[in-house]
Amino acid sequence: MSDCIFCKIIKGDIPSTNVYKDEHVTAFRDINPVAPTHILIVPNKHIDSVDVMIVDDEPLIGHLFTVAKELAAKEGIAEGGYRLVVNTGAESGQTVFHVHLHLLGGRQMRAMG
Amino acid sequence: MSDCIFCKIIKGDIPSTNVYKDEHVTAFRDINPVAPTHILIVPNKHIDSVDVMIVDDEPLIGHLFTVAKELAAKEGIAEGGYRLVVNTGAESGQTVFHVHLHLLGGRQMRAMG
Repeated sequence: MSDCIFCKIIKGDIPSTNVYKDEHVTAFRDINPVAPTHILIVPNKHIDSVDVMIVDDEPLIGHLFTVAKELAAKEGIAEGGYRLVVNTGAESGQTVFHVHLHLLGGRQMRAMG
Repeated sequence: MSDCIFCKIIKGDIPSTNVYKDEHVTAFRDINPVAPTHILIVPNKHIDSVDVMIVDDEPLIGHLFTVAKELAAKEGIAEGGYRLVVNTGAESGQTVFHVHLHLLGGRQMRAMG
């Protein structure tokens, strides 16, 4: 998607603080963090939102979670705990329409929404 | 896990308001909803938390999301939007140590944590 900011980050056309990359997933720090650790874990394939994912995407979406788990360990937040959030659509607060998993940690989490 | 409340719900040994069931996943309404729609989508296989999931679990974790998408449509919240949350560990607010995806919607979501 030529006009998608996350596709541009994945391609390296927009700078980001990357913390992980493999064939299927890219992870980088949120530019407006809401917790001491706030990383976005993003499929390299453009999918607008969970609402348009297909069954074939299930392993890819699941892979975001093993990456999240590894990053939580690297960040030193695995023991304390961390929250994983995917927003879908306007009422959820989704602002970039390319699926992304928020990894949040480093302090006690409050209400989920 | 004989002492896990979600395993007991999946087996039908504890009553719950089920909204979906297949070979891999069971979904039921949260007994303490924090939004007009608040459904828990749970793998039938016992996994304590994302922090102990393995790569082989990736398709199963991804499957929680296609079920969430279908349930959001049934609940009438797909158009407005919905938030999907997995808490992992004490600081996140995880209280039941069997992986579960929260499906939240029906109102504007606030801060993620």
